[in-house]
Amino acid sequence: MIEQLAESPVDFLYQQVTERFEQLITTGVLKTGDKLPSLRALTQEQGISLSTAFRAYCELEAKGFIEARIKSGYYVRYAPRSGAPTQPTPKPWTDPALVSVDDMIMQVYQNLSEKDIVQLSVAAPALELLPEGKLNKAMAEAVRTHAASCLNYEVIQGNQRLRTQIARYAVASGITVTEEDVVTTHGCMDALVLCLRAVTSPGDTVAIDSPTYFGIFSALQSLGLKALEIPHHPTTGLDLDYLENALQTVRLAACLFVPTFSNPTGTCLPDADKKRLVELLAEHRVPLIEDDIYGELYFGRQRPRTCKSFDQRGLVLLCSSVSKSLAPGYRVGWCLPGQYLAKVVQLKRMTTVSSTAPTQAAIGLFFENGRYDLHLRHLRKALHTQCLRYTQAIAEYFPPEIKVTQPQGGYALWVQMPPTINAYTLFRAALREKIGLAPGQIFSMDGRFKHHFRLCFGAPYTQSIDASLRTLGQLIREPMEPPTAE
Amino acid sequence: MIEQLAESPVDFLYQQVTERFEQLITTGVLKTGDKLPSLRALTQEQGISLSTAFRAYCELEAKGFIEARIKSGYYVRYAPRSGAPTQPTPKPWTDPALVSVDDMIMQVYQNLSEKDIVQLSVAAPALELLPEGKLNKAMAEAVRTHAASCLNYEVIQGNQRLRTQIARYAVASGITVTEEDVVTTHGCMDALVLCLRAVTSPGDTVAIDSPTYFGIFSALQSLGLKALEIPHHPTTGLDLDYLENALQTVRLAACLFVPTFSNPTGTCLPDADKKRLVELLAEHRVPLIEDDIYGELYFGRQRPRTCKSFDQRGLVLLCSSVSKSLAPGYRVGWCLPGQYLAKVVQLKRMTTVSSTAPTQAAIGLFFENGRYDLHLRHLRKALHTQCLRYTQAIAEYFPPEIKVTQPQGGYALWVQMPPTINAYTLFRAALREKIGLAPGQIFSMDGRFKHHFRLCFGAPYTQSIDASLRTLGQLIREPMEPPTAE
Repeated sequence: MIEQLAESPVDFLYQQVTERFEQLITTGVLKTGDKLPSLRALTQEQGISLSTAFRAYCELEAKGFIEARIKSGYYVRYAPRSGAPTQPTPKPWTDPALVSVDDMIMQVYQNLSEKDIVQLSVAAPALELLPEGKLNKAMAEAVRTHAASCLNYEVIQGNQRLRTQIARYAVASGITVTEEDVVTTHGCMDALVLCLRAVTSPGDTVAIDSPTYFGIFSALQSLGLKALEIPHHPTTGLDLDYLENALQTVRLAACLFVPTFSNPTGTCLPDADKKRLVELLAEHRVPLIEDDIYGELYFGRQRPRTCKSFDQRGLVLLCSSVSKSLAPGYRVGWCLPGQYLAKVVQLKRMTTVSSTAPTQAAIGLFFENGRYDLHLRHLRKALHTQCLRYTQAIAEYFPPEIKVTQPQGGYALWVQMPPTINAYTLFRAALREKIGLAPGQIFSMDGRFKHHFRLCFGAPYTQSIDASLRTLGQLIREPMEPPTAE
Repeated sequence: MIEQLAESPVDFLYQQVTERFEQLITTGVLKTGDKLPSLRALTQEQGISLSTAFRAYCELEAKGFIEARIKSGYYVRYAPRSGAPTQPTPKPWTDPALVSVDDMIMQVYQNLSEKDIVQLSVAAPALELLPEGKLNKAMAEAVRTHAASCLNYEVIQGNQRLRTQIARYAVASGITVTEEDVVTTHGCMDALVLCLRAVTSPGDTVAIDSPTYFGIFSALQSLGLKALEIPHHPTTGLDLDYLENALQTVRLAACLFVPTFSNPTGTCLPDADKKRLVELLAEHRVPLIEDDIYGELYFGRQRPRTCKSFDQRGLVLLCSSVSKSLAPGYRVGWCLPGQYLAKVVQLKRMTTVSSTAPTQAAIGLFFENGRYDLHLRHLRKALHTQCLRYTQAIAEYFPPEIKVTQPQGGYALWVQMPPTINAYTLFRAALREKIGLAPGQIFSMDGRFKHHFRLCFGAPYTQSIDASLRTLGQLIREPMEPPTAE
């Protein structure tokens, strides 16, 4: 089904260039240390735009074929071992060539319910980090003191007290809104789908991050929308030059980005880039759906700004939820749809009628009582610590060729392996060792990130996690070493 | 927006015939007591099918223009008063001509949150009929004893214990299923939308009841689907001859019917008709989405059978929820999608990820403990009593020209007024008297039921209800009497 989504001409050009260089490097025409043409030279040589050239180099870098040296340019980094083409794949690792991205996603989801697996694949807090007792108390109080409204259909726009609290948090992050601008939803994904439906029609093209959370392109696919994947810079996220170029050639109905602690790369778009993004899209009158689900989970001193806070024209539709910060199972999300408010409310009425009343009331109460602030302070500290512990273990147990991101918030480490290792193969091998991880393939529609995987640090660091990371390190080393006789 | 949905040729033919007779009768060409051509004569005269002819007469009968006399045929019933064409509309009643069906729906929904209005418009139980205390206890117990699963993402298909209970009720109603065949949803509307998306593509045509719950054609509209409205027989519901004929000429992607206690007419399709419907659709390989939301609310001795219980091929997708029987605000619904199970689960994953965990767990517990059975017994009895009380009041307070259905379950009385009274005008006048009702216009896409309204008896009969029905009777009488000087 994924294949049905047509690729844009831009995608095609960029892939051609990338593949040509991969071939030159793997066949040894270009050797380790060789300098590549400059970006400008490449554009002239290939007749492509600067951002297409940049995206090709970024991907080659991401794949480990080349490296950028400061103020010097791009160099070949990949050193094929002598026996590379005939390198044997260890027996129990099956051929992933025939597995579709959608099947891979299903497999990752399926194993979530298996209790004996160490889940390094879930971008969500471990249950022990959640204020279970306090939340249960809020729930009991909500159904007792607001019995009528908990039993009855909620007003379509959502529980008013909850909306007031959501508006309060938004105002604190620089957005000018009241509860009248907020619509509650069934989690963040429901908010994204409502907003997509409000601003697009089937057949339209929507720009998304690449890599991005697989749920996003699944949602696009289910709505009959085409995706244009915008590449990421390894540290600052979204490549705005690439997007600017794309806007000249492709008619975009909307953009859907995760600007703050993107999933899986964990990058946070700098404030200046967020401002530029909003202005750029306003110029082209393209609405921006901003997935801010990780926004409150920063490790630094203050909350990063949202794109919405730079929005002058109501073109930014901010979506979020408590699924990553408080209670995944409660399915309490919301959106601030700007000028698309009426349309979003209408669509909500037409599809889900109203939101679940008791969970909304409980979360509203939890926010009102100041418990959410307190909880967030604890959670941020715990996640930051866990991030550092996991990163240290990776440095210790994984081969030195492995690269890993340094996120400033959220749940995800994005791990890059040498191009000899297929992430889906690793996923299967890890699963046999009772370790769950998310193979890079599931973060793009064409399974492009074959040598990456996402490792989530939502669980406190324990001996079991330590052992799992050590095993993972061994699994990654295995196929890189010459096979031993048994 | 409603206008964008193209009408089928069948609709067009039938409307032409209906309008021609209306004109002949209102202009006095055909007079009270005149015999109309037989159905067979009409088909020959107009070159239309028997079911189109039947539908036209049904509508003329429903509008009060004609009446069927047993073993005799159809006769003109409508007696225009001498001043009919120039009959003055009382001052405060505004012209409804410019109000779209969608605007009317919004108006009906808007006033739901106003506390001082006597709500005769809501097809839902009054709060005092719901087991608030017992349900709150189930919720408190659920979040306490199943804390982990209430906080965490639920498995995509839904809470297993709840699904087991849903399967148990389905088996009791003659359906062979296990919990593996059940998918939980965010209320019944979410179930309907998931099932529609599983079996249709935008642009497809779906057959629906006429009249039907406005949420159903709103949902079709939001999914870019066309609707073919299948008329109802006043007592037995869905006109199967009409449907059979339509299947010959129109390519239907699916049917979406409410066969048991249809909303708003309250009719229940007889078992033999349900069987015939399932077989007819199986023959044409057309999936049937069966909205069974009122199925448990029968006034008779036993639960009516579902269409699903006659289904041999997995072509029936049954949808339901606890919104009409236990807790509207909980948004706990489900579907039994037959052979479309995998597709529905995939769509659920792609749009809402998972269902709300605490409400599912609470309802599951409430079912398990046998509390639901007990509650249903009380609720059925209360609703039956209320239905009779409301009906008696209508007989007493409303003019004798008024006709009203005699439902055997559910919440709705479908009231037919003389063709001189516009239901939307009545709705506006009633609202000024703090009475909420649902004008007939909102139960078809083209606002066809101008002289009907839905009156719901979900609230126990009180002095305030009695006074409201008396007022309503006066409002209905008012414009029918010559204006008096003041």
